[in-house]
Amino acid sequence: MAEKGDESLIIVMGPGATPEDVAHVIERLEEIGAQAHVSEGQFRTVIGAIGDRDQIQQLPWEAMPGVERAVPVLKPFKFVSRDFQAEDSVVEVGGASIGGGRFAPIAGPCAVESRDQLFASAAAVAEAGAAILRGDAFKPRTSPYSFQGLEEKGLELLAEAREEFGLPFVAEAVDPRDVGLLSSYADIIRVGTRNMANFTLLSELGRQSRPVLLKRGFTATIEEWLNAAEYIYKEGNHQVILVERGIRTFETASRNTLDITAVPILRGLSHLPVLVDPSHSGGKRELVAPLARVAAAVGADGMMVDVHPTPDTAQVDGAQALLPEEFEEMMDTVRRIAAAVGRRA
Amino acid sequence: MAEKGDESLIIVMGPGATPEDVAHVIERLEEIGAQAHVSEGQFRTVIGAIGDRDQIQQLPWEAMPGVERAVPVLKPFKFVSRDFQAEDSVVEVGGASIGGGRFAPIAGPCAVESRDQLFASAAAVAEAGAAILRGDAFKPRTSPYSFQGLEEKGLELLAEAREEFGLPFVAEAVDPRDVGLLSSYADIIRVGTRNMANFTLLSELGRQSRPVLLKRGFTATIEEWLNAAEYIYKEGNHQVILVERGIRTFETASRNTLDITAVPILRGLSHLPVLVDPSHSGGKRELVAPLARVAAAVGADGMMVDVHPTPDTAQVDGAQALLPEEFEEMMDTVRRIAAAVGRRA
Amino acid sequence: MAEKGDESLIIVMGPGATPEDVAHVIERLEEIGAQAHVSEGQFRTVIGAIGDRDQIQQLPWEAMPGVERAVPVLKPFKFVSRDFQAEDSVVEVGGASIGGGRFAPIAGPCAVESRDQLFASAAAVAEAGAAILRGDAFKPRTSPYSFQGLEEKGLELLAEAREEFGLPFVAEAVDPRDVGLLSSYADIIRVGTRNMANFTLLSELGRQSRPVLLKRGFTATIEEWLNAAEYIYKEGNHQVILVERGIRTFETASRNTLDITAVPILRGLSHLPVLVDPSHSGGKRELVAPLARVAAAVGADGMMVDVHPTPDTAQVDGAQALLPEEFEEMMDTVRRIAAAVGRRA
Amino acid sequence: MAEKGDESLIIVMGPGATPEDVAHVIERLEEIGAQAHVSEGQFRTVIGAIGDRDQIQQLPWEAMPGVERAVPVLKPFKFVSRDFQAEDSVVEVGGASIGGGRFAPIAGPCAVESRDQLFASAAAVAEAGAAILRGDAFKPRTSPYSFQGLEEKGLELLAEAREEFGLPFVAEAVDPRDVGLLSSYADIIRVGTRNMANFTLLSELGRQSRPVLLKRGFTATIEEWLNAAEYIYKEGNHQVILVERGIRTFETASRNTLDITAVPILRGLSHLPVLVDPSHSGGKRELVAPLARVAAAVGADGMMVDVHPTPDTAQVDGAQALLPEEFEEMMDTVRRIAAAVGRRA
Repeated sequence: MAEKGDESLIIVMGPGATPEDVAHVIERLEEIGAQAHVSEGQFRTVIGAIGDRDQIQQLPWEAMPGVERAVPVLKPFKFVSRDFQAEDSVVEVGGASIGGGRFAPIAGPCAVESRDQLFASAAAVAEAGAAILRGDAFKPRTSPYSFQGLEEKGLELLAEAREEFGLPFVAEAVDPRDVGLLSSYADIIRVGTRNMANFTLLSELGRQSRPVLLKRGFTATIEEWLNAAEYIYKEGNHQVILVERGIRTFETASRNTLDITAVPILRGLSHLPVLVDPSHSGGKRELVAPLARVAAAVGADGMMVDVHPTPDTAQVDGAQALLPEEFEEMMDTVRRIAAAVGRRA
Repeated sequence: MAEKGDESLIIVMGPGATPEDVAHVIERLEEIGAQAHVSEGQFRTVIGAIGDRDQIQQLPWEAMPGVERAVPVLKPFKFVSRDFQAEDSVVEVGGASIGGGRFAPIAGPCAVESRDQLFASAAAVAEAGAAILRGDAFKPRTSPYSFQGLEEKGLELLAEAREEFGLPFVAEAVDPRDVGLLSSYADIIRVGTRNMANFTLLSELGRQSRPVLLKRGFTATIEEWLNAAEYIYKEGNHQVILVERGIRTFETASRNTLDITAVPILRGLSHLPVLVDPSHSGGKRELVAPLARVAAAVGADGMMVDVHPTPDTAQVDGAQALLPEEFEEMMDTVRRIAAAVGRRA
Repeated sequence: MAEKGDESLIIVMGPGATPEDVAHVIERLEEIGAQAHVSEGQFRTVIGAIGDRDQIQQLPWEAMPGVERAVPVLKPFKFVSRDFQAEDSVVEVGGASIGGGRFAPIAGPCAVESRDQLFASAAAVAEAGAAILRGDAFKPRTSPYSFQGLEEKGLELLAEAREEFGLPFVAEAVDPRDVGLLSSYADIIRVGTRNMANFTLLSELGRQSRPVLLKRGFTATIEEWLNAAEYIYKEGNHQVILVERGIRTFETASRNTLDITAVPILRGLSHLPVLVDPSHSGGKRELVAPLARVAAAVGADGMMVDVHPTPDTAQVDGAQALLPEEFEEMMDTVRRIAAAVGRRA
Repeated sequence: MAEKGDESLIIVMGPGATPEDVAHVIERLEEIGAQAHVSEGQFRTVIGAIGDRDQIQQLPWEAMPGVERAVPVLKPFKFVSRDFQAEDSVVEVGGASIGGGRFAPIAGPCAVESRDQLFASAAAVAEAGAAILRGDAFKPRTSPYSFQGLEEKGLELLAEAREEFGLPFVAEAVDPRDVGLLSSYADIIRVGTRNMANFTLLSELGRQSRPVLLKRGFTATIEEWLNAAEYIYKEGNHQVILVERGIRTFETASRNTLDITAVPILRGLSHLPVLVDPSHSGGKRELVAPLARVAAAVGADGMMVDVHPTPDTAQVDGAQALLPEEFEEMMDTVRRIAAAVGRRA
């Protein structure tokens, strides 16, 4: 974890910087209570800034005369970093665990549409070995005219399915005012990709006790994603699970580009568990099984998959939902790959 | 505006599609109350779907057997489209107007930090001909450890500055629960780039009466941006102003890439006024003046610029803030360019 | 494969299109010897264009009055498409084969630097089960001041290593004038990511008989990549192998973003073998093993890995090269995963 | 310009780096003849590397134990940089000049298709005040089945048009083997966006005497683009002109996203003249005039515009070509804006 005493910014002065330029930088640092450690090289001066990282990085160093570059040397997130906690975090929920050598499959319909649809899907995924049920009652949609979810009625159906099939469930929150409602029903609360940078929602989720499954913003860098996790963690809720779900790139052959490299990168940067969503990244049914195999092979802690009894009539994202029998078949191969990398699925 | 009776999706069947495949598509359309208009070409069949656009586009057509491609032929937004309203919208606020042949400069500090800082900036921009004052009291920050704004105290200072300098002001809302507070102080409420897809915030803003200045998400397409505007508009608030502020690309030489092409594209698609933010897209002081000239030349309805009396000590985004005298000098050239394209600045 | 008689473009007229607009489109089609198949829908007219695809798609349909959208319904590539050849292509070279149920590891140093360096690397990868040796004699470098390769001397060393270790080798061509030289030494000729759209180089490679390993341009879409393969194939060289190596995105935590989804997408679109390069996409040593596991799991036909005896002194891309012992250890897990998906490594 | 004696890399050691880690870094530097300037901070050690920049930056510092970050402090390009030459370069060609306070319009058809087409376009643009004629005889096309140009016949027609209308002309080279032919006909040789990183073509162009107009790769960073210019410059040809033509982003409403911010950034980094291409970036006729105004306002040295007498029948890029009368009308406004920023058009 970042200590107050560390150098948190290295300010490299240009070859033409004057002594006044150097003095100006030192003065600005002292104004905010930071210390300057000055090293004069043969051709350029380098200033290490020691003090409160956030205050230091806030000032516009590169706009100051004589400054060539200002290089942050500490990450902006703290509690979620591997430096703060060396061992992997494990989230335990309703008999299931995420992290700690397991490969946890989460499965179910994208949106809860009806009791029949939910129960058919839940029965199938329970049978095929899913650890946790997914299903949303609130859907944030790009168009205001699309189906927005069954709301509280949907949560009630999910709670019924939990009783019936013995699976804890995860559902999405889209409004800070609904967090209380969600946490009274769901076992895990999900933050969708469009809300990853909704800081008021994140803070609210940090102040309740359900684990939070934080999907990556489809346009967020890994650093921004860990900053979002930090918003939850620093409020006191340490049960945060990350889900890679694809990023927006120039390629349009798939809906998004699954950034599978993010998983080993996160392993190095953070102690939080990491899942992969093979359904929403590709956006097409035939891509789900290959991407699920990839999730197991890379060493993720699990995956989240859309399964729908009749995808052709799904109100949300049917094009990518697996049929129950497809999910079951896929799980066989996924288990063999998880075993090859030393995990139980 | 999209009429119910229009074909809203063209479903192109592949050359190998069977009569059963065609029948399956027609059946799915009829299930949702839509009509199918079938044209048999020499080698492939094309089906025009007529009915409720949102219901039709929801189904996973491209995952159905025999379907080669499904082409939406109506835009998902309605009220904000040029088809719905041919003439340009004009927003009138506190004596200023945005749209209608003016080039409106909005200027002031990024964040309100103190009475002195705000008043120094406001005095300067009023003197140099700004139409509206900017300044934020709530700041959504990527890192939870950065300065988050003065909150209500900041709004009070802005209201004082309005009295003193005779300029209406715009300030940002970051939480649906603060919308009431904002609308009791501010003349215009701004939605920042990170909240463009925060649909609960947008809906709340649609249900109050202050004009809304909607910044483009830095990773949003133009279509997603107009959908966000539609969320506000359809709730009853028709005073929506768009602000292009740069998008995230692979280029890192500037903070973001100003998408200046978006302005003429929006002119074709929508009747809403469009501004440009030359400060936040480039992220560097020396880029502000060239990009402000570009805003005037392309035919935008105005611009929004950060001006700070002492940028070196700014708590937010000082690297890109202009000094008051730089703003004044820049306005001269901007006025000449606006005149060359037939606008008054 | 695209037949001349197929409809290759669907032109959707807008709801306000006049009969003159429709007539104008038909006239333009007839001018280039194409036929128009007109279907009048209830609200809009759809015109299917039948004739030479390339001539048809060349005209600026969407700029013509009354046209709302023009939708291409045939892919621009032909011979490399799955439609043209249903069964997978297999490339046989010097006792090794790529495609056809194998998972072929290609390994060796990025650039040939010296006899010692090359032989140490080749001995190690041969021992660990590599099928083919890699090593470049010509390096296209972003900066004109970086090391550009040993040129013909490098090819001679590679040929020696082939004798010594019994492995065929692949080396890169960067200039159409060097193709003859390359094909007199190498078993496979590689096109690097920066030359994927160098059409004169591709055509030259299509006119010689060595198999060609075509890396994806790091900013190329899958469709552009298959078009590049078509340039080689249509000249008569049918031994083309594709290599996914990461694309440029906004994420900077890894050098590029490995687009693993491209592999199953290519399986659907093309009959060509597909490899993955886990070294150049991530750009860091610790990412190579996870990405190699991913390559095996997704069902690629092999991978290409940088192995260097002393990465710290490598002149090109040392940061991502594996030590020989790391490669050997990694191969164990990769073999188990390949077996889980039904392939021999 | 980068001096040998300058520190060209700042190596920041992590807080946990051991004395052995520091010694290892120093040893590696000494092996390549570089010097290390070590500054021990309170918590971390910073090493300035002095010596040959290219050799130094080649080694994999960040992969070495104890190294936290390696920060290059000199740009990889030299001769094209503003540090090397403070005053703006001006290219003089056939009576026209690019750079030096002018705004030079280059205009004509995208591809030369016939004598009639070329002459109709050339007559119109000469009349409307174009300084230079454009027209290509060799076209690199994404699909091998598209029109590839009239080749030498096209160059002959361009030379005839030069006689007739008194305008020098620019044409594209796509193969290093054609450079001799091109330089025997054309006044300026253009490198297209797909060939910006074709280093063998660039080097060939650096060894002949015609000015080179280097379009930005649509996926190239500004730094990569200046490196490409350096390839030409360092071979002895100092007449290099840069053309911004839009970059590939996630936005699909326009063909590419014009990166207008690149113009003021290049002004700071380089002394080379910079033009803007408003035709190819937007890809639609109605976007050309707004983007041409933007080019004049931002302070570019000119623009390059497609003009075609009958765009509907153009074999290449007709959708974006202006009619002669549209070009003429647009030039009026462009001249007024150029005057407002102190340039003659």
